[in-house]
Amino acid sequence: MFRPQIKVLDCTIRDGGLINHWQFSDEFVRKVFIALSRAGVDYMEIGYKSSEKYFCRKENGAWKFCTEEDIKRIIGGAEMNMKLSAMADIGRIEAEDILPKSESVLDMIRVACYAKEVDKGISLAHQCMDKGYEVTINLMAVSKVLESELDEALNDLSKSNVPVVYLVDSFGAMYSEQIHFLAKKYSEALPGKDLGIHAHNNQQLAFSNTVDAIICGINRIDATIYGMGRGAGNCPLELLLSFLKNPKFDIRPIIEIIQELFIPMKAKMEWGYHIPYMITGILNEHPRSGMKAMAAETLPDLGQFYDDLKDNTPLD
Amino acid sequence: MFRPQIKVLDCTIRDGGLINHWQFSDEFVRKVFIALSRAGVDYMEIGYKSSEKYFCRKENGAWKFCTEEDIKRIIGGAEMNMKLSAMADIGRIEAEDILPKSESVLDMIRVACYAKEVDKGISLAHQCMDKGYEVTINLMAVSKVLESELDEALNDLSKSNVPVVYLVDSFGAMYSEQIHFLAKKYSEALPGKDLGIHAHNNQQLAFSNTVDAIICGINRIDATIYGMGRGAGNCPLELLLSFLKNPKFDIRPIIEIIQELFIPMKAKMEWGYHIPYMITGILNEHPRSGMKAMAAETLPDLGQFYDDLKDNTPLD
Repeated sequence: MFRPQIKVLDCTIRDGGLINHWQFSDEFVRKVFIALSRAGVDYMEIGYKSSEKYFCRKENGAWKFCTEEDIKRIIGGAEMNMKLSAMADIGRIEAEDILPKSESVLDMIRVACYAKEVDKGISLAHQCMDKGYEVTINLMAVSKVLESELDEALNDLSKSNVPVVYLVDSFGAMYSEQIHFLAKKYSEALPGKDLGIHAHNNQQLAFSNTVDAIICGINRIDATIYGMGRGAGNCPLELLLSFLKNPKFDIRPIIEIIQELFIPMKAKMEWGYHIPYMITGILNEHPRSGMKAMAAETLPDLGQFYDDLKDNTPLD
Repeated sequence: MFRPQIKVLDCTIRDGGLINHWQFSDEFVRKVFIALSRAGVDYMEIGYKSSEKYFCRKENGAWKFCTEEDIKRIIGGAEMNMKLSAMADIGRIEAEDILPKSESVLDMIRVACYAKEVDKGISLAHQCMDKGYEVTINLMAVSKVLESELDEALNDLSKSNVPVVYLVDSFGAMYSEQIHFLAKKYSEALPGKDLGIHAHNNQQLAFSNTVDAIICGINRIDATIYGMGRGAGNCPLELLLSFLKNPKFDIRPIIEIIQELFIPMKAKMEWGYHIPYMITGILNEHPRSGMKAMAAETLPDLGQFYDDLKDNTPLD
């Protein structure tokens, strides 16, 4: 038994690129593209659409920008069983930087925004829809906003034309209870829209929270190969595909590419479960202090790190 | 809000010892003992009670045997806020190897057995109760038994005097759905008894399945420091204590000892999420083939490993 409405989006290059400034070789991205396509994944999110006004090509690899030339260099000649997506962060892109769909190989733009800037998000999303793209809004960091602020954002979204809204656990702070509570809230506030889930793994709950979201009826599911993503990373694609019983999915190409590319990469670039990320997760904090701790030559005193972060966390 | 009935048992030395044949230094075990005691953990499972008839002291460290002398060497002089437990595996110990409680520093014996040998398990458990110990039965590998066989074992347990029975996901194969199904089955079959949960992390679900078990009313909870345990390991104690809102728990001593002892140890001895364990988990297989793959000098071809194990797994 499976639910054919479920669509899986892999965002390994986009979210994983937050670790290495998108410095992936073309060969790496092409192999990921082919493996995802063979595995039956529905969407590959290949990176961010960002304006070169705001970010420098020297510091950031191609997948911070996702120009048509960049993408065509990867997919040229390959079979195309999958749709392609890019993410646009509010404040880091102008609508005019996004080509009409007729001139792009991208199928979907996912607009990421905070609750307080949801109107800007909706505006950009509408412009992308007008240009012919599939569009979603990913409302980030909702574990930190007051419920009234979230309700207002959901109300704005309910009146928009945006067809898909994601529940995002940016800090890996949610337990199943919060997923069930928020999935119900989003469903009730957004009748007629599809919902998505994007989880982080600070408390080893990215996969289980994703399963809980599926149980709650959420159909648009984010994952990354071997869980690669910022900080503690994301829901591992190989676990998700194995859980979903849809026979169109095949985890073997994912197992192969994990062995070829991701196990060697993880030995050099540590994402996944580490105590600094666990601590930011349990305290519902942005992972940046954890990333700083992990990047240091030697780990700081973790007891002290915990005390400092706990004491700086507003308790209200 | 917390549930005061919840009792946490740490089995780092017992289950973690399955990786290194219990070759822990006395200093290591003593530091674990002190950290657990400070953290407010209810029980420390310090190892197995095994007969020296069956196992050799040369190959196995002290915690495969847990003699009184071994344990007293560790706890001598330390504050005692915690109860001590040892596990007895059916077929690896005789009842006469277990001293009367009046002559032992152990408080509890947990009897581990398979469903097919539950009568032997009950018999040993009753003898341990007669000797004055707290006693539990841990029914292993229930994801592999036919439901009728499990029902029969639960029926036998319901007629026994054993007060606590554990739901054990030996292969890390269960999703939340199975935890809910089995917790309900155990509750209904075992009125008046306390239930426990022991999870493995092959699919990164040990912690979330433990939370699900708590939601289902299970009160006896197993965990290990930094998730150390056979194969993919267990529910990480630091995540569990942070989730439980009982103010008696303090994760700081656990964070400290992870930094001092467990991060360095994990660099040499890999437990946790690895693809060979993921594969045995999704296929509901004993982790031994995964452990063999991980112990090899270079990983075998993981695509082939997956195919071989899948083809050898009965599909009925």
